This record gives sequence, C-alpha cells and structure tokens, in this order.
Amino acid sequence: MPDKTGLVKGVLSGKPRSIARAISLVENNEEGAQELLKGLFPHRGESLILGITGAPGSGKSTLVDQLIGELRAKRKKIGIVAVDPSSPFTGGAILGDRIRMMRHSTDPDVFIRSMATRGHLGGLAKATGEAISIFEAAGKDIILVETVGVGQDEVEVVKLADLILVILTPGAGDDIQIFKAGIMEIADIFVLNKADTPGANKIEIQLKAMLELGLKDKDLPPVVKTVATEGRGTEELVQAIFNLRAKKERADLAARRKKLIAWMLRDITQEKLYGLINRAVKDSEFERYVEKIFNRKIDPYTAADEIVARLTGKRLREKR
Amino acid sequence: MPDKTGLVKGVLSGKPRSIARAISLVENNEEGAQELLKGLFPHRGESLILGITGAPGSGKSTLVDQLIGELRAKRKKIGIVAVDPSSPFTGGAILGDRIRMMRHSTDPDVFIRSMATRGHLGGLAKATGEAISIFEAAGKDIILVETVGVGQDEVEVVKLADLILVILTPGAGDDIQIFKAGIMEIADIFVLNKADTPGANKIEIQLKAMLELGLKDKDLPPVVKTVATEGRGTEELVQAIFNLRAKKERADLAARRKKLIAWMLRDITQEKLYGLINRAVKDSEFERYVEKIFNRKIDPYTAADEIVARLTGKRLREKR
Repeated sequence: MPDKTGLVKGVLSGKPRSIARAISLVENNEEGAQELLKGLFPHRGESLILGITGAPGSGKSTLVDQLIGELRAKRKKIGIVAVDPSSPFTGGAILGDRIRMMRHSTDPDVFIRSMATRGHLGGLAKATGEAISIFEAAGKDIILVETVGVGQDEVEVVKLADLILVILTPGAGDDIQIFKAGIMEIADIFVLNKADTPGANKIEIQLKAMLELGLKDKDLPPVVKTVATEGRGTEELVQAIFNLRAKKERADLAARRKKLIAWMLRDITQEKLYGLINRAVKDSEFERYVEKIFNRKIDPYTAADEIVARLTGKRLREKR
Repeated sequence: MPDKTGLVKGVLSGKPRSIARAISLVENNEEGAQELLKGLFPHRGESLILGITGAPGSGKSTLVDQLIGELRAKRKKIGIVAVDPSSPFTGGAILGDRIRMMRHSTDPDVFIRSMATRGHLGGLAKATGEAISIFEAAGKDIILVETVGVGQDEVEVVKLADLILVILTPGAGDDIQIFKAGIMEIADIFVLNKADTPGANKIEIQLKAMLELGLKDKDLPPVVKTVATEGRGTEELVQAIFNLRAKKERADLAARRKKLIAWMLRDITQEKLYGLINRAVKDSEFERYVEKIFNRKIDPYTAADEIVARLTGKRLREKR
C-alpha cells in the first residue's frame, strides 16, 4: 500500500515522479489506485483537452513535437496520452517511445503516457479518462490525446477531446480516409501538413469545397498549413487553437466533457459488474447450476435468470 | 411471433426447414428465440460433438467433406458449426459457403451453420452452444465444430468438444503452430493429412516423439494418416473416432460437457447483465450522475458503486 496522501500531494504539486507513480499505479490496477483517483478528483484543474489524429505517414509525431515546443515557449504545462493501435502484448509503447526520444523527454513539465488500444480491462475510455484525471490534478494546462486514427476505438477516444485536430497531407488520399472514419464532421481544426509538397494547394481547395458542401451553414473549421519538419506554421496552429477555444461556447465544451464522463462512468460501472459476474462464476452456486443443466433439470436461460436475480435481487423481465 | 410449438415440433422431427428457421431465429436474436431454446432443451439427444481444427492449407475442408461422406454411409445424421475467423462485417460465411457448395448440400440430414468468431452479442460459446442445442434436439448423431485454429477464441471453442481432432500436414511447420496454440495437450486424435507428400513420414516420427515426450505416461493419441483429396484414410479415421469414444470414460465426456455448459451459462448471464447496464446507462439517474461528476459533487468510482448498488441492491466491497 503506497502512501496515498503523500502521492496525492506529489501529483497536485506536479512532481514528475509522483505523476509517473500515479499513472503506473492506475495502469497496473494496483491496490489503492481507486483511492488515489478519488483523492485527486476534487482537485482537478481546468485543462484543455486536445485530440489529435492523422493517418500513418502524416507527420503527426513531428507535428506533435513542434506543438509541444510552441506550447512550452508559452509556459504551458503538458500531459500527453498517446493511444497506440498496437497489440496488447507489446504494451503499445511504440508511439510513446518515439516521442520520449525527442527533445522534450527531459522537460519536467511534459509528461507522456502511451497506451495500447486493446487489452484495457475497463475499456479505453476509462484508461484515457484516468490519465486525464491525473494530468488535470497535476496542473497540466494542455492535455494532448493523440491517436493514429485507424481503428474505431481510437477515433472514439479523440471525439471526447475539447477540441479535435485532424492532420491531412497532400497526395495520401486522406480525404477518403477521413470520410470513412467520420472524423470530418467533428474536426474543429484541420492541419494540412507537408504544405510545401506538390498538391498541397489542390488538397486545400478540395478540403474547403468538401467542408462547404458538408457543413452548409455552419462555421467552417480553420485549415492551418504547416511544414512540421521545419517548424513552419506551428505558431499559427497554436494561435488557431487558442482562438477557437475562446470562441467555443462554454455549453459546447461542457457537453463534450459530459460525454467523456458518461463514457468513463459506463466503463467503470461495467468493470464493477464484471467483477460481480466473475465472483458469481467462481462460487459453488454456479457449479450447482451447471450440474442441474447437465442433468436437464433446468435450461441455461432460466438458470441465468436465477443467477442474475440472485446477484441483483431483481427478476429480469423475460425479453430476448 | 413465430408458432413456437410448431417450430419445436419441426426441429424435433429433424425437418431441415425448421432447423434453418430455428437457427436464424436464434442467430438474429429474434423474439421468441429464448423460448424456442427453452422448449428444445429437455429434448436434447446424445450427440457426439467433434471438434476439428487445422491450419489454413491443411486440407481441412476436403477432409471434413470426406468425413461427412463416410459418416453418412453409416447413416449418421450430421450438424456442422463452422467457426470462421473472418470479420464480423462479412458475417463469416466464407467457410460455410465453401462447404455448402460441396456434394452434401442437398442431403437433408447434413446441416451447416457457419458463423464468424467476432460480433456475437453473447459470445462465441453461447452461439456455438445454441447451435449445438438445436442440432441435438433435431436428432443429429454427430456435431462437427470446425475452426481454422488461428485465433484464441476458436481454439477455445474446439476445446469444448467431446473429442478433438487436430489436422497436420507435412512441411507446413505445423508442429510449431500447434505448440503455440496449446492444442497438442488437448488433441484426442491427430490427422496427418496429405500423407502422400514428401516429408509425411518425417513429421509423423517428429509428432510421435513430441507426444511421447510431452504426454509421458498418458495414453498417446492415435495418429491417422489421410489423403483427403483421394478419400484415403477416412474410413480409418471414422473407426478411430468411434473406438476412442467407446474407450473414453463417461466421466471424462461429462466433464467436457460441463465445461461447455459453464462457459455458455457464463455468456448468457453476462448478456443479461449487459442488458441491465444498457438500461441503466439510458435512464435519467445515470444522466444525473454524469451531471454530478461534471460538477465535482461526486467522483466516478463512487458514482459507479452507487449505480451498481442500485442495480443489485448490494454494496460492493471496496476493492481494486
């Protein structure tokens, strides 16, 4: 059992060591993790959650690196959740490692948590939400949630950010990919990276035409051109982010936060109910039901109803 | 609402049309599906469930086709559950279609249900168990559960059969694959298909050496050599199956059935609890919790505990 009060204090004062300890505690679902999160909860700050997604090869890592540099120049404290679609076996550290090797790795005010999309006991929303909670308590001003935007789960996670950035590049056929993922409708800012390569203007025109067609009377999201490898356009991008945040209705931001909370609450409730099922399956009453089913004394559906009734004290309405 | 009594009668008399209707009713989770399964349950027969798995390219489809022919010559009625690792979007019909096109497609005593490993609301064990229930009620003597043996889920399903056949082929590096999947330990019969190709003897020797090493004092499972494309060895295989069934302890077969029942019961219970969660998430109380969390009046873990308590009438012991 770690010293929770000490750890809560350490996180609240933004100590990298405490943040790291808190994240690993939560990630490994160790004893005291829930107590820690409860302890941090009332102290959450008012961070801005930025979702960033882009196809592989869009230069996302480099852009994120530049973005961090620009935000750090403005003395913003940063937490990063790097959602990686890799297998649950590798732990999904590819993306995180890549970033960790970069120039911000020694900056105590930049903290990166990388995680795989799969293999989360309680679901990706819960894992993301918990990392965000720790970062908020630690006083991070900006929390980046970045995903490659390939799988459905990652896309869903990005949707729960306060502002969503979608990275496009010329000549990669991104327009179609974006349409597929349903991201276009929810992007707040488009970043046209590698804007110095041929076809950049063409894709910009295409994109704007698409947006005008698709969004009709709504405000068009800004399109910011960048050349991340040279740091060009990053300042404009940060400006666009802060402008948009200022312009966004409070109600709009609140609605997104509530969606994140609802998803997280659902994950947590589900995990707790799973615990109930697992305990139920292990107990001797369950074995007795298996025996009765085997001997055709009861059918499995009636047995399941009885188990649920025993767990919940309620009869389920018969429905299927 | 279908005429359930009529449908139960139809299935019990083995009418292909009724079986098809029953399977689609259950598969689509239509109204009355659970009632139907309850109605069929007391009438289950004493089928032999054969699990068959083999790597892609092992000639499994051809072997299954030959096996069906041999079993039909012995007037056995057959039901097949073809578990296909394809995506949930295609519905997983690839394997089933391939078999359907074969010579037994017009035989009223051969019925094939193919299904994808993913996208089952209540889990693969439940879907497999339900298909087995229908086949048993319809008086099938042999129920084949066949999988490509690639993913973890399919391997698990095959483990729940009464007897497990593993197909190997020379020169495909199968030995290593089999070891990986943990199938070797649970195979009851090994089928060495394509036994007329070079290397067949070598793999037979390797396999037997491996088995002697791995199983030590236990009875070695028989190794049957086949050339499925020419129908060679199929008679011996069927003989080996019936010999083994006669030799198997009743307690041993019962233990496997109980494992299948336990898994299925777990799936069904889980599905019913899921229904509870979904209803809980939709109701206004859940919305109120989201609001309270947003306003920092309660943390999500305490909220989840309260929701679970409300669902179950029980306080969960605090544990994480």
